[in-house]
Amino acid sequence: MSRRPTIRDVARVVGVSAATVSYALSGNGRVSRSLAAQVRETAAAMGYVPRHAAMALRTGRSALLGVVLPNIANPLFPALAQEIGRAARRRSYALLLADSLDEAAGQDLAVTQMMARGVDALIVVPRRGSTLPEAPLPLVVIDTAASSERGVCSDHREGGRLVARHLLGLGHRRILVLAGPENSRVAQERLAGLHDVLAGTEAAALTIRHTAYRPEGAAEAVQDLGEAGWTAVAAVSDTLAIGAVNALVARGIDVPGKVSVTGFDDLVWASIVRPELTTVRQNLARIAESAVAMALGEREPGEIVPVELVVRCSTATAVPARRTPAGSSAATRSSAPARSPEGEPA
Amino acid sequence: MSRRPTIRDVARVVGVSAATVSYALSGNGRVSRSLAAQVRETAAAMGYVPRHAAMALRTGRSALLGVVLPNIANPLFPALAQEIGRAARRRSYALLLADSLDEAAGQDLAVTQMMARGVDALIVVPRRGSTLPEAPLPLVVIDTAASSERGVCSDHREGGRLVARHLLGLGHRRILVLAGPENSRVAQERLAGLHDVLAGTEAAALTIRHTAYRPEGAAEAVQDLGEAGWTAVAAVSDTLAIGAVNALVARGIDVPGKVSVTGFDDLVWASIVRPELTTVRQNLARIAESAVAMALGEREPGEIVPVELVVRCSTATAVPARRTPAGSSAATRSSAPARSPEGEPA
Repeated sequence: MSRRPTIRDVARVVGVSAATVSYALSGNGRVSRSLAAQVRETAAAMGYVPRHAAMALRTGRSALLGVVLPNIANPLFPALAQEIGRAARRRSYALLLADSLDEAAGQDLAVTQMMARGVDALIVVPRRGSTLPEAPLPLVVIDTAASSERGVCSDHREGGRLVARHLLGLGHRRILVLAGPENSRVAQERLAGLHDVLAGTEAAALTIRHTAYRPEGAAEAVQDLGEAGWTAVAAVSDTLAIGAVNALVARGIDVPGKVSVTGFDDLVWASIVRPELTTVRQNLARIAESAVAMALGEREPGEIVPVELVVRCSTATAVPARRTPAGSSAATRSSAPARSPEGEPA
Repeated sequence: MSRRPTIRDVARVVGVSAATVSYALSGNGRVSRSLAAQVRETAAAMGYVPRHAAMALRTGRSALLGVVLPNIANPLFPALAQEIGRAARRRSYALLLADSLDEAAGQDLAVTQMMARGVDALIVVPRRGSTLPEAPLPLVVIDTAASSERGVCSDHREGGRLVARHLLGLGHRRILVLAGPENSRVAQERLAGLHDVLAGTEAAALTIRHTAYRPEGAAEAVQDLGEAGWTAVAAVSDTLAIGAVNALVARGIDVPGKVSVTGFDDLVWASIVRPELTTVRQNLARIAESAVAMALGEREPGEIVPVELVVRCSTATAVPARRTPAGSSAATRSSAPARSPEGEPA
């Protein structure tokens, strides 16, 4: 190609005005979806580079958004990164992505390096237990309600409430909570939501177990499930829920026939495990769109995004024999000998 | 902090020479692992930015490596990106990561944008069916043997041979191959490896089914498995293998009691599905190290990295009733009425 294609070249090929191409590429909604898609495809096929990107080296503006993720081995974060990438692309920004490798030091290094590279703004999903540096550029946090004034987050607490109401509605009263690491703020808010609903429910009792976010931790935590008489396991992450499901099924305990299990996040593997997980889905597209808008100064930070309960096959009505009679206390139940579900027909 | 910490500040805190800090941060092996880790942690805690990164804007060298992945929703690619990130960090390089979003146009755009941002070199895992542009900077390809002269790849073909030998050793002779999309070069090489071994084995027969890399495609492909008399399903990806396992188990067909299933890639979910998958593992750490070394001119491109068979629980001895007697032809077998395994006790 003798010269870089311009926005006018793209407009000529598509047969629209240069302004329409600009609207389509910035994704600001004045152009129909199908036309916008056609413009984007044509622009990409022609190798069109938005002017501000091509000019970045000269003007010092990078058209670059830095995204720091805690650990891209957790499929939640690549899924979020894809949505952030789409929101950035609608504005002709590219992503500089960095992975903290699940270490606070890795996060510090990533943030420092991003700033050294001159990104226009940073979006950070903090590694749990870490503190974020003051940055001399816009820094949007995607984390929890506790930090929502710095950015955007899911309504984790409401997610906990949705799970609690779902399990109560199925007759579950004794619930084991796989609560994740003690220093996880996300887990704390999800747990608080479970408490909100169950604290006001007579005869309901939560047992809390903290473990690392690993299937093995969940497997260990549900080992004495038969003796303790729990009829449901509410995990604050799909990873833990999957560890619980696989450990229970391996011991011949039917899920959800004997024990219901819920997760959180609707990771891709929530549909791979059998039974498929009932879980809470975050609205990643909306979080990403808001985070990018905040990072680029289009709007003020501070948003809590609703979540959604996804009911699949891992939850069912509590086994009648285990249902706590109305009015009996949790303490009474817990002292009653619980039948072990092991070896019972599924 | 009044000024940026230098390599000498880090050396003073750790109590070693500046040269030792430099060696430790570049990961060139002259420093013990534990000391190198201590140096890296201290440097990160102090907010040390390697000089070439801090100087990048002035010198025009970015200390930035561009990595273009076909689709980070596939957990293989984040896992690879983490290894590339580690290899880059050992050399004080950071990654600019881009996701083609599984579109050829997305790949073109990512490559063009990376170049516009002045990365020092590019590492590309091509989107299948795409062609890569000539680039005015080092461009390393991670793909297949067919393109290995441009970079590094796994020995996909040998992976196919390992699977074939494993299944033959278990007595399987009639094998259904879930071969992925027809335009996937990776899938073609894996399939060629299966052929290499089975073509020379009397009475062995492969049936090839092409589908998208989606569990649903696999589920459909194994629907007539009962009638056709296959005793094993060899998938060219874990995604397809998992689709097959879940579809078979849902129909009451015991895996591996009735049918063995193998995957490819040892994705994280290969250990989540039940039974856990027998699969082929790529050496991502070695591929990443080589790719970064090639991108930065430390070595010439052109390497094929060995793969490893990981035997788990989804493969077992072929059911005796189905074993093809030595010397009988595949054609004979295929005309014999096969018992449907449906409804048989697991």
